Amino acid sequence: MRLATRNNGKPDGELGVVSSDGTRALFGTPWPNLLAAIGDWSRAEPELRAMAERVETEGEPFAYDTVHAPLPRSWQWLDGSAFSTHGKLMEVAFGTAPIVTDKPLMYQGMSDRFYGPTDPVPFIDEAGGIDFEGEFGVVVDAVPMGISAADAMAHIKLIVQINDWSLRALAVPEMRTGFGWVQAKPACSMAPFAVTPDALGEDWRDGRVGLDLTIEWNGKPFGRANGREMDYGFHDLVAHAAGTRDLVAGTIIGSGTVANKGYAKVGSSCISERRAIEMIADGAATTGFMKFGDRVRLEAKLPDASAPFGAIDQVVVRR
Amino acid sequence: MRLATRNNGKPDGELGVVSSDGTRALFGTPWPNLLAAIGDWSRAEPELRAMAERVETEGEPFAYDTVHAPLPRSWQWLDGSAFSTHGKLMEVAFGTAPIVTDKPLMYQGMSDRFYGPTDPVPFIDEAGGIDFEGEFGVVVDAVPMGISAADAMAHIKLIVQINDWSLRALAVPEMRTGFGWVQAKPACSMAPFAVTPDALGEDWRDGRVGLDLTIEWNGKPFGRANGREMDYGFHDLVAHAAGTRDLVAGTIIGSGTVANKGYAKVGSSCISERRAIEMIADGAATTGFMKFGDRVRLEAKLPDASAPFGAIDQVVVRR
Repeated sequence: MRLATRNNGKPDGELGVVSSDGTRALFGTPWPNLLAAIGDWSRAEPELRAMAERVETEGEPFAYDTVHAPLPRSWQWLDGSAFSTHGKLMEVAFGTAPIVTDKPLMYQGMSDRFYGPTDPVPFIDEAGGIDFEGEFGVVVDAVPMGISAADAMAHIKLIVQINDWSLRALAVPEMRTGFGWVQAKPACSMAPFAVTPDALGEDWRDGRVGLDLTIEWNGKPFGRANGREMDYGFHDLVAHAAGTRDLVAGTIIGSGTVANKGYAKVGSSCISERRAIEMIADGAATTGFMKFGDRVRLEAKLPDASAPFGAIDQVVVRR
Repeated sequence: MRLATRNNGKPDGELGVVSSDGTRALFGTPWPNLLAAIGDWSRAEPELRAMAERVETEGEPFAYDTVHAPLPRSWQWLDGSAFSTHGKLMEVAFGTAPIVTDKPLMYQGMSDRFYGPTDPVPFIDEAGGIDFEGEFGVVVDAVPMGISAADAMAHIKLIVQINDWSLRALAVPEMRTGFGWVQAKPACSMAPFAVTPDALGEDWRDGRVGLDLTIEWNGKPFGRANGREMDYGFHDLVAHAAGTRDLVAGTIIGSGTVANKGYAKVGSSCISERRAIEMIADGAATTGFMKFGDRVRLEAKLPDASAPFGAIDQVVVRR
């Protein structure tokens, strides 16, 4: 099942069910929005699945110019960093020491706004080091404090695709405080469709999304790393997040930047990684960060080239 | 003006205006809850102030057993650490190096739940090192990205009193990752009343709350540090928070643990500080953290001994 949110003038938008080819939709669900539905998922899911059976034949054409993020806002966004290839390259990019921990890495980010897939993304200053970070994420229903990773799996109700916008020039000073990132992590963006795990078939396995995340920067191929190389599965990340807190329904948990050991072949999901690879190969980074007017497109693809989450395709603009 | 939220069975509760002595209240405002009112503050404030004039004579007795946090949840909670006395003592307690930064310290915490002032507070395990942290906080309306500190002052609409519950045994490993705190920072608690800055008179000055925060642990005096010694005012913290993001209306910004240079006389607002003071004086900490069944009371007092925010008075329980 595939869900989308369209602009109805309200902050949470209007929930709809989308056809498997992404061209048709049915709105008018019994829930005003996805945040409300995920808070009542045991009742919402069967009703939405019944609509999903009808959407293929009865759906109206889906107007992409009204599309929001599936969750334009939520109560909580906790982003992991579960691809150790990314972590190792970031140590090079940042000039920081290896992180020693026996737990998943995770920070809490802003959740009051997720940009829609084609919203222009405003920044005050290019000097912040504007970078995209292609990620996958999951949305959970209410999760009790102290849950095991095994039990956490059943709380993963939806999967989303995210661009975790980052300001690299601000990242290291904030990291060094130990308080984590605030200024280095402005609002993220989300691809148009949230999908149930079954919609990915065999590509949802062991709490990992086994899809290539294709990324184009200003129309040029940049990366196609696969989501399966997470050191921790999403169920592990959910259990970590819930270690000392109940997770509110609608909590979004991110994978961290998708990265593969074979980056020489598949490229990267953020600019900082490419810069680190340049530093390793040539002693210095030659690729700069994004400029106003730059465009980035992020689109996870199934083997048949279809895109279960749709595409994020955005331009960076000056505020 | 003093506002409170009572339990009406909905997640955000019901907004009311409370009399200056905290004994009487008027409900039935035009806004369903405080989160909605702060999102429409230019209209809400005059209407609520008109009710505040009537509450002294027309208010009903305020039933404390129905009281929630003024904001039982909000879209964003960003906690500073603006008392450098606290920072210096925490370096001793944690055994960490001094933090080098030319900006305010700040992390993003969970905002989907704030416990009410008398809610029992559940933890799975005493071994986490359960600690209270007495703080002040402010609530802003919508703040644009990149605002100056001077302009940020006018966006401070309400002041609150907070207990930022912390799990000290988990704090240092999370700090060392650079990602900030997730497991070390479960849900906070809030005192019953949110007040407008004018309600504090001369004790709201330079973006600081000049009140003593009296703290009792299991009925014994623990601290009475004053809020005026912040290195940065709340307007500076708001501007920092908004450096690269628009702040959603209802964002809560915390001061960090209230601490004074004269801690030998006034005590502390968290156990970790007392332990650091013991380490400095005696070479070792002798005070342990909280146990299940322990009670903590936090109450900021005006010179006439009245408590503008009311009191947080809570028991720690096993989940």
